[in-house]
Amino acid sequence: MGFITVVFHLLLHTVGLCSGGSTSQYVRKAEPAIDIPLELFPQPSGYNAPEQVHITQGDLVGRGVIISWVTPVERHPNVVTYWEDGKQDEKHKTHSITTSYRYYNYSSGYIHHATIKKLNYDTLYFYELGKQNVTRRFSFTTPPKVGPDVPYTFGIMGDLGQTYASKQTLDHYVSNPKGQAVLMVGDLSYADHYPFHDNRRWDSWGRFIEKSAAYQPWIWTAGNHELDFAPEIEEYTPFKPYMHRYHVPYRASQSTSPLWYSIKRASAYIIVLSSYSAYGKYTPQYKWLKQELPRLTGPRHHG
Amino acid sequence: MGFITVVFHLLLHTVGLCSGGSTSQYVRKAEPAIDIPLELFPQPSGYNAPEQVHITQGDLVGRGVIISWVTPVERHPNVVTYWEDGKQDEKHKTHSITTSYRYYNYSSGYIHHATIKKLNYDTLYFYELGKQNVTRRFSFTTPPKVGPDVPYTFGIMGDLGQTYASKQTLDHYVSNPKGQAVLMVGDLSYADHYPFHDNRRWDSWGRFIEKSAAYQPWIWTAGNHELDFAPEIEEYTPFKPYMHRYHVPYRASQSTSPLWYSIKRASAYIIVLSSYSAYGKYTPQYKWLKQELPRLTGPRHHG
Repeated sequence: MGFITVVFHLLLHTVGLCSGGSTSQYVRKAEPAIDIPLELFPQPSGYNAPEQVHITQGDLVGRGVIISWVTPVERHPNVVTYWEDGKQDEKHKTHSITTSYRYYNYSSGYIHHATIKKLNYDTLYFYELGKQNVTRRFSFTTPPKVGPDVPYTFGIMGDLGQTYASKQTLDHYVSNPKGQAVLMVGDLSYADHYPFHDNRRWDSWGRFIEKSAAYQPWIWTAGNHELDFAPEIEEYTPFKPYMHRYHVPYRASQSTSPLWYSIKRASAYIIVLSSYSAYGKYTPQYKWLKQELPRLTGPRHHG
Repeated sequence: MGFITVVFHLLLHTVGLCSGGSTSQYVRKAEPAIDIPLELFPQPSGYNAPEQVHITQGDLVGRGVIISWVTPVERHPNVVTYWEDGKQDEKHKTHSITTSYRYYNYSSGYIHHATIKKLNYDTLYFYELGKQNVTRRFSFTTPPKVGPDVPYTFGIMGDLGQTYASKQTLDHYVSNPKGQAVLMVGDLSYADHYPFHDNRRWDSWGRFIEKSAAYQPWIWTAGNHELDFAPEIEEYTPFKPYMHRYHVPYRASQSTSPLWYSIKRASAYIIVLSSYSAYGKYTPQYKWLKQELPRLTGPRHHG
């Protein structure tokens, strides 16, 4: 798995008020840790229907969202339409940046990433992908403005995979209305467990998590299972599928790589690091963290 | 500086015979550690004269050589002519692969890398670069065949730079006829000490070391001064100048990056690692080293 640091300003500033404690007696039932068959992750119906929809924070403070999806056959439509709840007369459109990649004998669909910014805080938005009879609609709520004592609830998941046990974990999370965003601390699809890292398992995983990730941001961290480094099949670029599929707003925190970055969200200051990238003295990640840490102190940086 | 591991098979196999001991009473006089002015590293005379000539091992066992040089104005000639001592009637030609790069406001010349292979062991070769009145001739001697008790003498240098003290170090090394190859353990030009990492200092360093590096292989390791990571001037690619200028035979040892690799040379098994690249568990460098280490044991792998 990867490495994520979450600093709750609530903790920093009002330690006396805070008691995390145990929030639930829930213990997951033991479902088998074997993968759900590929055919049980079907594509949504309709020609070129947008699929694997997921969102993440798209700026430093939570007024931006990156909306990502895959169109399996054609590049277009490469646009997302969105509007604020109650303002369906004021629809906005943003075009995606589209990418695709090959991995061994696999060719990805068109992977779209659209960043929308300057949204209002603490507001429900709807968004639509696709066209005509294959339009799909989703929604999300922006977080409140960053501040030291803003209540906000994160879910945290790692090593998810796509087994029957994974499904139980995800379903349990989705069934709880409290979680507002997910900290995904690495090890997503486990596609690398398949021969030739069968990248169709990256697609099925994207479909698997859509029920949550299309509606609330998942904050991404790369784990070792995201490396997909396989010289035996001439795949030499670490993190290739992950980096094509899961974009993050790393530039907003002056990072030079999507593998390490920070965001602020409500009362949390989240620093994502990469255990599987260089982190020695003088390296880009080291230098970034060194200039990042002083930003943590002092509420003057909020907002 | 970087990291280099040298295993002398001589030591492994005949420990009783070996005594390194002190080989010289030499202590460098204290010359000032200030950089020699740029104009004291002139280009060789003649239009488009090949410059910054340097060689390194070009295969796993020492029968190959990578010959590198820069042509400042035109890409051509991009060929090296070489022949065995006494066989000037049997001249061979090999074309170079040419690269160039930009760094901030600097544009490099044409950087050539020509790999010649299947040379005879322990043999003097001559090679020529350039054309007509700007032809420049150099020579090198291939190492003896790899074996556990083959005498061979390496020089070792790191943190060289291009100061008056650097010159004294290099001149002293060159004045000693014993050194047959140089292990350069990182921190080459210190161009990164200049505003905007003035890459003309990479050129001047290439001219500086030519008196040795054109005649015997320098085995390259990257140090922190090779990172040249400078986000403040939008230079985000670690090791960019170094990797364009100093090629190594990393594929011969099944490495996937020029930053870590191994070679055998006479009685030495040399493993080069990169302290400033990822080396955590599961990373490409880690996996490479893990499969590399077992190759060290057993003389059956020689030759």
